[in-house]
Amino acid sequence: MRALTLIILLAYKYPTECSDHMNKRAQILQDEYKRTLGGNINLTKQETKINNCLMKHKCDELDYAFEHPEYFNFSQHFFKYKDGIRNSNVYKIIKDMPKGAALHLHDVGLLGPDYLLNITYTDGLYVCFDNNMVSLKFSNKVPDTKCNWKLMRDARKISNNVKKFDAELRRHFTMVVDDPAHDYPCIKNTWSAFMGYFSTIFPMLSYRPVWEQYFYDVLKTFREDNIMYVEVRTILPPLYELDGTVYDPVVTAKAYKKIADRFVKNYPDFIGAKVIYAPPRNVDTNALALYLQIAKRVKSEVQDFFGGFDLVGQEDLGKPLLDFVPQLTAAAGELTYFFHAGETDWYGTSTDDNLVDAILLGAKRIGHAYALPKHPVLIEEVLKRDIGLEVNVISNAVLSLVQDVRNHPLASFFAHGFPVVISSDDPGAWEADPLSDDFYVAFMGVASKTSDLRLLKQLALNSLRYSALKGDAKTKAIEKFNAKWKDFVNNFQCSSY
Amino acid sequence: MRALTLIILLAYKYPTECSDHMNKRAQILQDEYKRTLGGNINLTKQETKINNCLMKHKCDELDYAFEHPEYFNFSQHFFKYKDGIRNSNVYKIIKDMPKGAALHLHDVGLLGPDYLLNITYTDGLYVCFDNNMVSLKFSNKVPDTKCNWKLMRDARKISNNVKKFDAELRRHFTMVVDDPAHDYPCIKNTWSAFMGYFSTIFPMLSYRPVWEQYFYDVLKTFREDNIMYVEVRTILPPLYELDGTVYDPVVTAKAYKKIADRFVKNYPDFIGAKVIYAPPRNVDTNALALYLQIAKRVKSEVQDFFGGFDLVGQEDLGKPLLDFVPQLTAAAGELTYFFHAGETDWYGTSTDDNLVDAILLGAKRIGHAYALPKHPVLIEEVLKRDIGLEVNVISNAVLSLVQDVRNHPLASFFAHGFPVVISSDDPGAWEADPLSDDFYVAFMGVASKTSDLRLLKQLALNSLRYSALKGDAKTKAIEKFNAKWKDFVNNFQCSSY
Repeated sequence: MRALTLIILLAYKYPTECSDHMNKRAQILQDEYKRTLGGNINLTKQETKINNCLMKHKCDELDYAFEHPEYFNFSQHFFKYKDGIRNSNVYKIIKDMPKGAALHLHDVGLLGPDYLLNITYTDGLYVCFDNNMVSLKFSNKVPDTKCNWKLMRDARKISNNVKKFDAELRRHFTMVVDDPAHDYPCIKNTWSAFMGYFSTIFPMLSYRPVWEQYFYDVLKTFREDNIMYVEVRTILPPLYELDGTVYDPVVTAKAYKKIADRFVKNYPDFIGAKVIYAPPRNVDTNALALYLQIAKRVKSEVQDFFGGFDLVGQEDLGKPLLDFVPQLTAAAGELTYFFHAGETDWYGTSTDDNLVDAILLGAKRIGHAYALPKHPVLIEEVLKRDIGLEVNVISNAVLSLVQDVRNHPLASFFAHGFPVVISSDDPGAWEADPLSDDFYVAFMGVASKTSDLRLLKQLALNSLRYSALKGDAKTKAIEKFNAKWKDFVNNFQCSSY
Repeated sequence: MRALTLIILLAYKYPTECSDHMNKRAQILQDEYKRTLGGNINLTKQETKINNCLMKHKCDELDYAFEHPEYFNFSQHFFKYKDGIRNSNVYKIIKDMPKGAALHLHDVGLLGPDYLLNITYTDGLYVCFDNNMVSLKFSNKVPDTKCNWKLMRDARKISNNVKKFDAELRRHFTMVVDDPAHDYPCIKNTWSAFMGYFSTIFPMLSYRPVWEQYFYDVLKTFREDNIMYVEVRTILPPLYELDGTVYDPVVTAKAYKKIADRFVKNYPDFIGAKVIYAPPRNVDTNALALYLQIAKRVKSEVQDFFGGFDLVGQEDLGKPLLDFVPQLTAAAGELTYFFHAGETDWYGTSTDDNLVDAILLGAKRIGHAYALPKHPVLIEEVLKRDIGLEVNVISNAVLSLVQDVRNHPLASFFAHGFPVVISSDDPGAWEADPLSDDFYVAFMGVASKTSDLRLLKQLALNSLRYSALKGDAKTKAIEKFNAKWKDFVNNFQCSSY
């Protein structure tokens, strides 16, 4: 359409000797548009109305940014512009739009610091402060590890300043800081803070009732962001009770399933959830053997609720998949793989090579695949095998892979029409929306200025297409999505934005 | 070779059920290596010795950086690590290596602030300070523009502190600052400083004798960096004499030719130079018509010394090529084009679309082509038409297109074996080497860890292949380069590094 408009606009302006140039130009722009993700979707009349509204706001916002690069958010750190996103009309439309599924998420990185702070008001929580670290644990008696444990209730009371106490505590529940350039000069610092965040909250959240409530609230929050289905990577931490009882990882998986079932019963428009067992990658082959046993046990217990297997942690510092090829090859018949691979800026290293192994091991999707543009043969394999690429653009910016998101490889993934799904990784850790912020940054900061509702719709459709749902379940999920989309389209009022 | 080593190393370690994986893995790595730029070069026995030496240093330096990302230079701003480059053995080898030609250079951006400061000691220079700006002009009487003009000699004397005076003056001759994040928060600031740099030095340097000496010294400095040929984009400023005589742009072109001829006479191992007329792009069609007339006149006067035509200035703020399509199409029979295009982070804008027009207008090379990965159809055209891509990686980092150079699209250009030449744009403005720094950053910061001497040799060969040299002249240039390369190879001693 853009190309056609150009021809019409320019036809009167250019002499005939240029018409060859102008025709070829229009053809190239049109061909390139068709190759972009979603470029072949035909919008209905009503969808076109939404698109006009969306693109008016998109152009206004981007034109202003182009004229005033000093106010262009996406060249800055996410922490600098995240609160401003709420004012964008494009964001508001994206927020209201059904986005399908979020497929790349980590268990306790999903809800923000205010939610976590609220948990610290639960009875039975002990706290211990030590060297700018905080330890948290639910128990019906003082925990027996060496630390100056206090009941949180008492610690808060004796602080004499609850507001300040809570503000201090909240700092441990988020990576957001005022001056990210100062606090996170390099990837080492961001990952250290990121790992610190998890070590702080895991012991608090793996108290069984809290774990279950957390997951229920995750589903609720994601549903409110117009997401209908999630696949959650989890280390399946052993849950515990107040009396010190510690459970098997299978219990954690069953707790997930119980909550997902309960949620779907309460909200029948929600499709559901699956878990992907994703223990830490920085281990030896003996530990991996145990992981694979757990994975198989969980699968046999929760059946279809079990999505598959992955390994997590800072990829550069963890073991490369190469180390586990024999074991993972042997288990490939029983387990579906969703490996993190290529979440790195290091080209030609063992981390970079994880992409080769992930693909050869038959991964159904690849987490991040940030390094893929440097691998022409692997790109062909990804397309041939139709492997979904789980892109988490805000995560990559926060975790020091890229500064200005316009340099994110997602731009070329979009341009080449690669099988991308957008996800949010750990939105709670950086106080982002469940998925709308990632959609917004991808749409406004990464995609072409000319990419429109077709891209957004394709991303939503891809999230179901590349999900671990199978057969009938997938068909039904897509039907549910289509119904939601139809509602969105029929009820859309441009004047609301 | 890397793939083969892997097979050998791992064959004993892996059970037979994995041999299929390992074979395919090796094949993919080998196929991908062959597709990289230079991946098909066969090194001679002596070249392999150099390569072993080079790769030992490369691996040592990168392994240390991988283990200590806080000391990894290339994720920081160039100004933060530029002085440290001199300690690298890889840099020293690159410095000594014949690099062929530098094809993307701008007239007065080539020598550093110390050289410029030295010019201010030339008799007849007037200076005027006004609001943190400095104006410089050679004349045999006080310049008649309204300003508090003083002879530089007098201004320096009455300063009573020559060291401080010179240090202040030097600041106007460089973009380098201690805290680039503070001084250059966004592209607007970098380009404003960059344009200020040119406005300050152009009036001083376009004094005819200084202009000629400057270019002679450019050739000398580039030759010392083991470059044998240059193509210089120039706005062909009117040169002037002390008595106020101002010349036609053709005189500027002839001065260039005179100096190039003199230099080649003095240094017969040097191949020579050409100029590409490259006036500012932010003009109307009337001004463009004048430019094209000048280009044709210059071409008829200096003949083969004239390389072709381009337009310069911040691409986002300048006119898109689209505005000039009729005129440029009409002149395409007479002029060879070397357009800047796609030097932008803005995807889907008129700047981004310059790539389409540059290609359709028959550009022989494209300056920067930074946005190319977002254009699948144009990539095919670039390959089909064998258009050289002039990549200036340090320039793109300094001028705010990319922070961590590992995110520079050059990485994927290398991976896909695109027709890249490395150049340095305006190395004087950011106090870089003529070309070795750009080679170093491209080789260590952007290319695969496994890319070796083959990449460097291919880059040097490409610089002649994609030059504006024709027929016999090109053949002779390549012969001269081969002789230099042979000398380098035969005299190489790893112990010197």
